Amino acid sequence: MKISDLGEFGLIDILTEMSNRTRDEKHIVWKKLIKGIGDDAAAWQGDNSIKLATTDFLIQGVHFPVEPASWQALGWKAMAANLSDIAAMGGTPLYALVSLALPGETEVDCVTDLYRGILEIANQHGAAIVGGDMSSAPMMIINITVLGSNEKRGNPILLRSTARPGEKIAVTGFLGASAAGLKMMQENLRLPTEDATCLRQAFEKPHPRIAEGQLLAEYGVRTAIDISDGLIQDLRHICQASHVGARVESEKIPIRPEVKNNFGEKALELALSGGEDYELLFTASTAITLEIQETTEVPVTVIGEITKDNTGKIILVDKDKESFSIRERGWNHFNKDEKNRYEPF
Amino acid sequence: MKISDLGEFGLIDILTEMSNRTRDEKHIVWKKLIKGIGDDAAAWQGDNSIKLATTDFLIQGVHFPVEPASWQALGWKAMAANLSDIAAMGGTPLYALVSLALPGETEVDCVTDLYRGILEIANQHGAAIVGGDMSSAPMMIINITVLGSNEKRGNPILLRSTARPGEKIAVTGFLGASAAGLKMMQENLRLPTEDATCLRQAFEKPHPRIAEGQLLAEYGVRTAIDISDGLIQDLRHICQASHVGARVESEKIPIRPEVKNNFGEKALELALSGGEDYELLFTASTAITLEIQETTEVPVTVIGEITKDNTGKIILVDKDKESFSIRERGWNHFNKDEKNRYEPF
Repeated sequence: MKISDLGEFGLIDILTEMSNRTRDEKHIVWKKLIKGIGDDAAAWQGDNSIKLATTDFLIQGVHFPVEPASWQALGWKAMAANLSDIAAMGGTPLYALVSLALPGETEVDCVTDLYRGILEIANQHGAAIVGGDMSSAPMMIINITVLGSNEKRGNPILLRSTARPGEKIAVTGFLGASAAGLKMMQENLRLPTEDATCLRQAFEKPHPRIAEGQLLAEYGVRTAIDISDGLIQDLRHICQASHVGARVESEKIPIRPEVKNNFGEKALELALSGGEDYELLFTASTAITLEIQETTEVPVTVIGEITKDNTGKIILVDKDKESFSIRERGWNHFNKDEKNRYEPF
Repeated sequence: MKISDLGEFGLIDILTEMSNRTRDEKHIVWKKLIKGIGDDAAAWQGDNSIKLATTDFLIQGVHFPVEPASWQALGWKAMAANLSDIAAMGGTPLYALVSLALPGETEVDCVTDLYRGILEIANQHGAAIVGGDMSSAPMMIINITVLGSNEKRGNPILLRSTARPGEKIAVTGFLGASAAGLKMMQENLRLPTEDATCLRQAFEKPHPRIAEGQLLAEYGVRTAIDISDGLIQDLRHICQASHVGARVESEKIPIRPEVKNNFGEKALELALSGGEDYELLFTASTAITLEIQETTEVPVTVIGEITKDNTGKIILVDKDKESFSIRERGWNHFNKDEKNRYEPF
C-alpha cells in the first residue's frame, strides 16, 4: 500500500500505534508526558513548569514557490507558524532550532534574507535561535523547532482534547485574509491598494497570538488550537480529540472587511477553510468567553457551540439556522487532488 | 554569491553573526544560554539541570540512497546520529521529535520499517518520541530533534571549546569500520563473512556512546565531540573552537581488526577521515584518562596530545615521528567535488 492511499492521518495513526505498543511506560519520560503526538505541540512536566516542543517542515515547491515573492517574509512566516503552535498551547516560546538544507546554487542573499525574517519575529517574541543543522539538498528545506513552556506557574496548558458540550466556540481576530491574500497574488487580482496591502500582509507576515494564548489559559480556557489548516478542519481536530460535535453559525464568522468587500460570496469559504490565519480557536463557558472579550485588545468572536451529538463533525448553519455544507479545502497531505495549491505551513 | 562559493562553515558564520548582532542580550533566554550554535548540541541552564537540544536532516539521495539496503537500519542510524550528539555533551536523551516528509508513492512498509528502527534505538535509550511533523515532498526527508539534559546534577557538560595544551587526546572504541562497511557495500567487495557482517553492522547500526559520555563528564573531562564527520575533521572542530593545535600519532589510532585485515594501507585513511563511527573523541589530563581507561568496558585509546602551537591544525606523525598528510575526506556540505559520496548523517 502507498502513503497516498493511506493519507496523512492514517499514517500518523499507524506510527503512533507502533510507538505506543513498544514504549516502556515505566520510564520517567513517559510518566512526565502530558501530551504526545496529536496536539499543536508536545507537552511534558519539567522541573518547575510544563515544557512544550513543536516542529515544522517547509519545503520549496511544496509549501512555498521556487521563487518566493519575499524571502524575508517566508522566513518570518516559517517561524510564525511554529510560534503559533506554542501560542495554541498557551505557552511562551523560549528556544528555537533552525535547520536549512539548500542547493549549492542558492544565492547567499536569499538565505540571509530568509534568516533576517526568521530572526525578526523570533527576536520580537524573545525566542533564542540556539542551534540547527545545515545540509545540501536538491531544493530548499527549512525545519524549525520551537521549545517553550507555561512560564506562569499554575496556568494549565491548552489542549485539543478538553472541549465539553455546551461550551461556546470562539476565535480571535478575523479570518480569511491570508487565503484571500494568496488568491489575490496567485490570480493577479487588482484590488484597491490599501486592501491589497492588508491581504498581502496577512498572508506574508501573520502574527502568532502568543499573548492571547497565555491570557486564555490564565482566564480558565482549557481547549484551543491555532487556525493553520482552516477553521473547519482545525475545529474538527478539536471535535475528534474531544469526542464532541460542533455547530457553527456562518453569519457570526468574523471575516475581515477587505475580504468581504473584494471576494463576495467566496469570502465565507476563504474564512472557513482558507487556513494560515494563525488566529486562535478556543472553547469555553459563556462567562469565561465574556471575561476574555472584555480583557483582550484583539476582538474575540463567539461563532458557535460544542455539541454532544455529531461526534467529530461540524454542522454549519446559515442566518436562517439552515444547515449547509461548503467545498472543503482544509489540508490533507498526500491528497492527489491538491496539485494546484501550496501546502499550508 | 552562491552558497557553494561560500561553503557550509562560511554560511554558518554569516548567519551566526546576524543572530548575534540582533539579539537582545537582556532577555532571560540569552542569559541562560550556555552554548548556542557551534557544538554537538545547544545547551542552556534549565530549572534543575542543563538542557540540551540537537537536530539533524536526513535527505534521500543526499544522506542515503533512494533505495536503502534496509529502511529499519536507516531509521536506527538516523536516531543514533542525534543520540550521539547528546552523548558528546555528556547528556541523557529524554524527548524526541521525528518529522517525515514523503512522496505519496512511498510504500507504507518502507515508512513503518524506518519508524521501527527509530523506535528500537530510542526505546533502548529511554528517549520518548513525543511529536513531529508530516508533509508530502518529492523525496523522503527525515528530521529528528532530540532533547536531553545532564540529569546528574553537578556534572558539567562536555564542550568543543575547552581543550587545553598538554591534554591527551583519546577516543572510545575503534575507528574506520563504518566507512569500511560503506566502501565494502558500494564496491561489492567480497570479505570473509564474519568481517563483512561486522563492518556492515558498524555502518548500519552504530551505537551512540551515551553511558560513556556521562562517565567522561563524571570523571572530570570537559572537552568532547562525537566522530561523525571523521576523526581529523572532528578533532579540527575541537582545535578551532579551543584555539589550540593537535598532534596525532597515527600508529596509535585504534583501527578495527576487520578494517586492518581487509583494507591494507587504506585502513588508516578510513579510520582518520571515514566518519560515522559515532565514537567519542575527548581531551583530558593523563591522570583522568588513566582513570577512565580503568573504569570503562569500552576500550579508550590515547592517540595524541593538544598543542599550544599550530592553532586549529592537526599534525599527523607516523611511527618514526615524521609528520605526513592524508587525502582529507572529512565533510564540507556544498563541496562540488563530493558528488560520489552520500553525506554523513
